[in-house]
Amino acid sequence: MPNANALEKITDYDRLVEIFGVSKISKELLKELPSTHKLLEIGYIFAHRDFDKLIAQWKKGEKFAILTGRGPSNALHLGHLLIFEFVKWLQDTFKVPVFIPLSDDEKYVFRKVNTLKDSLYYAYDNALDIAALGFDERDTNFFISSKLLDVYQLAITLSRHVTLNEVKAVFGFSDSDNPGKYFYSCIQAAHILYPTWKKGFRSLVPIAIDQDPYIRLSRDIAERIKLPKPAAIHSKYLPGLTGEPMSASKPETAIFIDDDPYQIKSKIWRALTGGQPTIKEQREKGGNPDKCIVFKWLETFVLTPHEALEWKEKCRSGQILCGECKRKLFEGLARKLYEHHKSKLKVISKAEKYFIHEVDWGMIEKIEEKEKALIERYEESAKDLNLSL
Amino acid sequence: MPNANALEKITDYDRLVEIFGVSKISKELLKELPSTHKLLEIGYIFAHRDFDKLIAQWKKGEKFAILTGRGPSNALHLGHLLIFEFVKWLQDTFKVPVFIPLSDDEKYVFRKVNTLKDSLYYAYDNALDIAALGFDERDTNFFISSKLLDVYQLAITLSRHVTLNEVKAVFGFSDSDNPGKYFYSCIQAAHILYPTWKKGFRSLVPIAIDQDPYIRLSRDIAERIKLPKPAAIHSKYLPGLTGEPMSASKPETAIFIDDDPYQIKSKIWRALTGGQPTIKEQREKGGNPDKCIVFKWLETFVLTPHEALEWKEKCRSGQILCGECKRKLFEGLARKLYEHHKSKLKVISKAEKYFIHEVDWGMIEKIEEKEKALIERYEESAKDLNLSL
Repeated sequence: MPNANALEKITDYDRLVEIFGVSKISKELLKELPSTHKLLEIGYIFAHRDFDKLIAQWKKGEKFAILTGRGPSNALHLGHLLIFEFVKWLQDTFKVPVFIPLSDDEKYVFRKVNTLKDSLYYAYDNALDIAALGFDERDTNFFISSKLLDVYQLAITLSRHVTLNEVKAVFGFSDSDNPGKYFYSCIQAAHILYPTWKKGFRSLVPIAIDQDPYIRLSRDIAERIKLPKPAAIHSKYLPGLTGEPMSASKPETAIFIDDDPYQIKSKIWRALTGGQPTIKEQREKGGNPDKCIVFKWLETFVLTPHEALEWKEKCRSGQILCGECKRKLFEGLARKLYEHHKSKLKVISKAEKYFIHEVDWGMIEKIEEKEKALIERYEESAKDLNLSL
Repeated sequence: MPNANALEKITDYDRLVEIFGVSKISKELLKELPSTHKLLEIGYIFAHRDFDKLIAQWKKGEKFAILTGRGPSNALHLGHLLIFEFVKWLQDTFKVPVFIPLSDDEKYVFRKVNTLKDSLYYAYDNALDIAALGFDERDTNFFISSKLLDVYQLAITLSRHVTLNEVKAVFGFSDSDNPGKYFYSCIQAAHILYPTWKKGFRSLVPIAIDQDPYIRLSRDIAERIKLPKPAAIHSKYLPGLTGEPMSASKPETAIFIDDDPYQIKSKIWRALTGGQPTIKEQREKGGNPDKCIVFKWLETFVLTPHEALEWKEKCRSGQILCGECKRKLFEGLARKLYEHHKSKLKVISKAEKYFIHEVDWGMIEKIEEKEKALIERYEESAKDLNLSL
């Protein structure tokens, strides 16, 4: 069984479903849900473990909890927002609590930050971005992993039910790795099982498909300590603007929440399209929306499924040019992010309502300053970029 | 280099000094101390790392902190009290803070208790026994390892400066061991470096000689993160009553603080002596105090060094019989422990003054009940056992 690290960049999703032994989300399962969501319809959320059983139990009145983490070493990008918007839909639809661990410890042991403290700014910043999506403040529980004693106590408790061999197999570590990385496997299992251990709710974990081995480890541990096994729903990866996976280390691949309209425009204009080399050829032969990242992003972030079909046709028949699509994507994303920053300002003043532990107001004030400056930047640049916000 | 586990039962102390590369405590070093202590005089505390440098710095006005832990899965025995009495002498002599981590997490990952919680009762009970020795409540800091966030945060911070290879070499773990055991190496280093990291005081760690590899690991880590390396002073093991090492799993080897006078008497009467098979032979040939555990214990717990020499001579010349030594030891220890329980009752009501974190008063009340019952038991049995308390 290949470990998660080795599989990180596989995007042959059918193969991953087979390797991991997860189930595809069937049409029958979709019909069981009280409503639907675009990411389910377009197959972006496409596989699961025990989601069907969880829904059946929920219909019988059994509550569950959503558990979805974030490793805070950078600003969120649009791929993250997409998943958290889906999580918010889950919360609204099923009326269940959401737990969101911010794993500063993970970022530190994997050397993504220099000190634990360096991760804190992003922990609060990321949390507030997520809260701004409209999560229910009475039922949403953020916590920074190294700031909640329960996490360490549960991780230690779980650690006795795993062997180093298992951790090596799942994470692909060697004896040159540090013991913090190894122990993080138990911390992660503690995050996943926290709602179950603390509140008695079975966990549902929305997670990218390549992370499934961690879910499997947590399910094995849950079974050994006789807790209900966490369920999972798996997402694909949204391709980055350049065609590569989105990555914080390659800023041109993604649009980050803190990018200003100039950066957004510049990145979109350099994005990979399915267009022809010349306008003439495009008009004659049409473009290829199936190979076009700009179209993929339009479909994902801006258009309704119906609009997307129309747009696709216009591209294929040469009625529209790449510049028009880019402009549409730019305007859609700039407006979306401008609205987002305004929503974020509103949740900042009640940040403490979203956290299980005390919050660092000094840091949150810094974030507030940054947000205000960003909003100004949007408003100043609108005229320059001919953008109606 | 053999690991600590493999060496646990070596009592050839000169060999350990050589293997570990520690220094013996020299007469010159003893002269540098402001006063002396019986355990230093009889060579029970016999080796060190950088204790000489620490004393030299202290004389120049640089404070240090004493760090000495306890793994709480059982009542303390007299061997533990002995070391903590010495630690109290260190505190009185050098006027320095003492930090005492109670490692419930260690006891759990090494399967000495079934749940983390099972360790808590002994954590408080052991702490109060130690506090009862007269530690300065303003400068003594107990903490239960899994109850202090600082511990996890520091352990994670340190974990990045160690490899699994090093942990394996020091602790002798295999890949079938659980990741909690591995991470405990970082927790232990966090305990040792806590006073330095948190308060800026270099640590002095009184520790049994076979535990030196853990000190070495902490010193290596300290060096890598540019903290002053912890110093250590090493003790020998007091032989158990049966001649074997004292152990909680073999109650006959040790006298536990909660033993009542009947148990104490029974254990001492079955202890190993250096006596002759018959009274006649003993009177004629004399006994061998160098091979006698009862004498060793009398020397350690009851007699002054001067009295011990006299007593030794009387044994060798056949003037006293084993029964007299046993009686003397029994009376000395019973009185010592009776006084101890009365002192403990006095510190129980101010337990919170000794802890860095909040204490569990429900548990402390249980301990108080137990202590009161024990004191009654002493008083009731005194007449029966012809014991003047």
